[in-house]
Amino acid sequence: MKSRTLGELARHVGGEVVGDPDIVIRAATTIEKAAEGDISFLANSKYRKHLRTTGASAVVVKDVTEAETNTALVVTDDPYYAFTQIVILMYGHRQHKQVGSSDKASIAASATIGAETQIHDFAVVDEKARIGARCMIYPGVFIGAGVKVGDDCILYPNAVVYDGSQIGDRVIIHANATIGEDGFGFATHKGAHHKIPHIGGAIIEDDVEIGASAAIERGAFSDTVIGQGTKVGDAVVVGHGTVIGPHCLFVPQVGIAGSTTIGSYCVAAGQVGINGHIKIGNRVTIGGQSGVFNSLPDDSVVLGTPAADIADSKRAYLGLRALPELRKTIKQLERRVAELEDEE
Amino acid sequence: MKSRTLGELARHVGGEVVGDPDIVIRAATTIEKAAEGDISFLANSKYRKHLRTTGASAVVVKDVTEAETNTALVVTDDPYYAFTQIVILMYGHRQHKQVGSSDKASIAASATIGAETQIHDFAVVDEKARIGARCMIYPGVFIGAGVKVGDDCILYPNAVVYDGSQIGDRVIIHANATIGEDGFGFATHKGAHHKIPHIGGAIIEDDVEIGASAAIERGAFSDTVIGQGTKVGDAVVVGHGTVIGPHCLFVPQVGIAGSTTIGSYCVAAGQVGINGHIKIGNRVTIGGQSGVFNSLPDDSVVLGTPAADIADSKRAYLGLRALPELRKTIKQLERRVAELEDEE
Amino acid sequence: MKSRTLGELARHVGGEVVGDPDIVIRAATTIEKAAEGDISFLANSKYRKHLRTTGASAVVVKDVTEAETNTALVVTDDPYYAFTQIVILMYGHRQHKQVGSSDKASIAASATIGAETQIHDFAVVDEKARIGARCMIYPGVFIGAGVKVGDDCILYPNAVVYDGSQIGDRVIIHANATIGEDGFGFATHKGAHHKIPHIGGAIIEDDVEIGASAAIERGAFSDTVIGQGTKVGDAVVVGHGTVIGPHCLFVPQVGIAGSTTIGSYCVAAGQVGINGHIKIGNRVTIGGQSGVFNSLPDDSVVLGTPAADIADSKRAYLGLRALPELRKTIKQLERRVAELEDEE
Repeated sequence: MKSRTLGELARHVGGEVVGDPDIVIRAATTIEKAAEGDISFLANSKYRKHLRTTGASAVVVKDVTEAETNTALVVTDDPYYAFTQIVILMYGHRQHKQVGSSDKASIAASATIGAETQIHDFAVVDEKARIGARCMIYPGVFIGAGVKVGDDCILYPNAVVYDGSQIGDRVIIHANATIGEDGFGFATHKGAHHKIPHIGGAIIEDDVEIGASAAIERGAFSDTVIGQGTKVGDAVVVGHGTVIGPHCLFVPQVGIAGSTTIGSYCVAAGQVGINGHIKIGNRVTIGGQSGVFNSLPDDSVVLGTPAADIADSKRAYLGLRALPELRKTIKQLERRVAELEDEE
Repeated sequence: MKSRTLGELARHVGGEVVGDPDIVIRAATTIEKAAEGDISFLANSKYRKHLRTTGASAVVVKDVTEAETNTALVVTDDPYYAFTQIVILMYGHRQHKQVGSSDKASIAASATIGAETQIHDFAVVDEKARIGARCMIYPGVFIGAGVKVGDDCILYPNAVVYDGSQIGDRVIIHANATIGEDGFGFATHKGAHHKIPHIGGAIIEDDVEIGASAAIERGAFSDTVIGQGTKVGDAVVVGHGTVIGPHCLFVPQVGIAGSTTIGSYCVAAGQVGINGHIKIGNRVTIGGQSGVFNSLPDDSVVLGTPAADIADSKRAYLGLRALPELRKTIKQLERRVAELEDEE
Repeated sequence: MKSRTLGELARHVGGEVVGDPDIVIRAATTIEKAAEGDISFLANSKYRKHLRTTGASAVVVKDVTEAETNTALVVTDDPYYAFTQIVILMYGHRQHKQVGSSDKASIAASATIGAETQIHDFAVVDEKARIGARCMIYPGVFIGAGVKVGDDCILYPNAVVYDGSQIGDRVIIHANATIGEDGFGFATHKGAHHKIPHIGGAIIEDDVEIGASAAIERGAFSDTVIGQGTKVGDAVVVGHGTVIGPHCLFVPQVGIAGSTTIGSYCVAAGQVGINGHIKIGNRVTIGGQSGVFNSLPDDSVVLGTPAADIADSKRAYLGLRALPELRKTIKQLERRVAELEDEE
């Protein structure tokens, strides 16, 4: 990683330097941890107080005045994105080992492997699977029969893709994640739970990233879909037949039951649960740990279990805290009213 | 998958055809997605509205009149089970590759492997493990020392079974699931947490299915048990020494702490948490995201955190939403009572 | 496992025998399950009622009088710890197979492996990884490039450690756990979520234990740290850049978002969610399923979502249950006050 001047970095992100453009930047880190030679960023106002005290040689900001800080600034409309571009320029993304197709891997004769794709030791590519170009298939990965993987995908160690699943281009699947397993589908009849064959598939569209230990069930009768550009965190579970639109963000431990439809640009915070057989619109935001029992229209912002409008939920929470006091007040009122009644 | 006439399918499930029994059925899918040549089903009243508009050539139903739909019907007492039987007839369950005992697997000399059991590449069967007949041990599966696996089991890729665990017949364990790991057991003494040797085991009875990334801890001092026919979803965690009865359904992300006893035919919806050292009766139903802190008698139906009778909880939720209004009312009452008092 | 007299066991834990020190103890188990020849313990008052009925030949206790039971006792200040020592003496911890460095493993030429460390079949140790002495690297484990693992560590099957992560001494990582994967970090710009290179690391300090299917993200810009002696349960997720102090206990399915700081000796019960960018003090206790949205000072004991002082939260829960009744009372009060007003 070669060092660069602040001016170079500012030009790279189309930002404006406030201070000396010849400052040499050697590393990037958080505003709290930054020291001389580091560049940092301010995107969350929580950290604004660190502008004065940071050891950073420069900070990427949006609306900060020189008066607020002693460090040089790179001013830009989107500091977090600009900083990301700087980090990519200075550090790049993870470099992967070039191993070709390891002779310690197990690749079915009927499988097809694209150009420059790396199949690591102990990875398994089953019958008729098709893997595109420039993919990284790490050790212990299992790619089932008939699976299709696009170009430029990365499957980290021990990720498992069940038979017939479809993975788009530039998809990243982290370690120990599972794609296309049978969903939780049983027909209960005469006291026993009978397994439903899952004839639906699992479709992971382009530019999706799936977290470690996540589990994306295949559909029972129709496909489960993770839409283009959607990011799914660690330990997230998506139920069978659920269709998630493009560019959603589902952070770790979110659970979405089956046969639900979710639009585009939705965000679910940690540990959110979403019911099955409902419809979530576009641009819906769901606060942490919320339980969404019913369908939600476009642009909803909800919180709580059951999830409701975030302002109402916050009011309800405050009311809940006030309840013991409220009960006292009511007891008093009853006494006072009784006295008034006696006076008749 | 060969096509069949509606009459054949109806006979197979003991249902009655309303319409033309000679209609040719080529595929099965959901009532929303179904097109000409498809058979579908109606089990959830939410989907009843689709009866009019479905493109299906036939729908498996219970109490639907011809007047409600333009498609042929198969009338049966249990449409979901009947449809499952049709799907099994038309598609069958997943077919598994016959590989025998791969020479790329690692099988201890002291292990015993039953007839027709398939041990795939990079699977490990450790010392003295005994695996029954007709099992499918997928790549990357680890079966620890002294583990017993019954007949007709399927262990999907990278599933891990710790030493000494016991797996019954017809058990299915999905990818990246873990059976029999040490529980979360530590004796805190003089500021350090001392690991408790887990001398208990993990027993998975017949006909159990365990989801992807699920974790079933072995017992610290007594066995953890998953009862016959119980189904456990993705990312479910069962704590050490917990005993779950037969035919329960624990959907994804449910967590059950240790040393708890659960009866038969219990159902826990998504993300439910169940406390340790409590007793849950038979036929208990627990709503999504509920937190069960205390023991529950047979036939309880609970919701909320802390979990309470579902009707009470729903009333409480409504009350919560009404709280801000309620507080206003009380303020007014106080004013009005004060005025009345002044008038004395 | 050889049997021992009660006297030997009492001496081993510095306890005092009440009853016959020559009783022969052959096994250890729970007070409910114990039979003749077994030793058990009483640490949780819930089980006190079993003192009378237990079949145990002896029970390790703190403040139990002979009058309360018919069995022999070992009296000690810390029965759970004492019992743990007895179990270790009688059973020991898990014994691991000695395999050396299996020729079915894949070990990079540039990796260094300490003395007596066992590398099992199909484990992968990537370039420049350094593993200390007496470690057990189970089958299917992946140790990425440049990873440092200390001495006496156990990595169970299919655990994955991403490149550059640092693991201390005596660390235990259970099956299918993931250490050091990229966090959930994306810069959203012009409608797309751009991946942030995670240049931070993951540091697992000495004596940490990590549960099955747990996921510990590497930092985006600064390291994620799990402090010395902290224990992390199954399916726990720790977000990027979060720093957890020493000797904490995070039980299964807890989720901690990124950039949060947690002190020492904190305890989070099952399914707790902790927000990102906050500060949790030392000795903080968080009740099951709580959602911690804001920072907490030392010694806080909280419950609920949003998490609040446990006593307040319990009062609030009670109030919530009383709400429907409360609403009736208020309706009546309104009527009564209206009548009083009319009488003017």
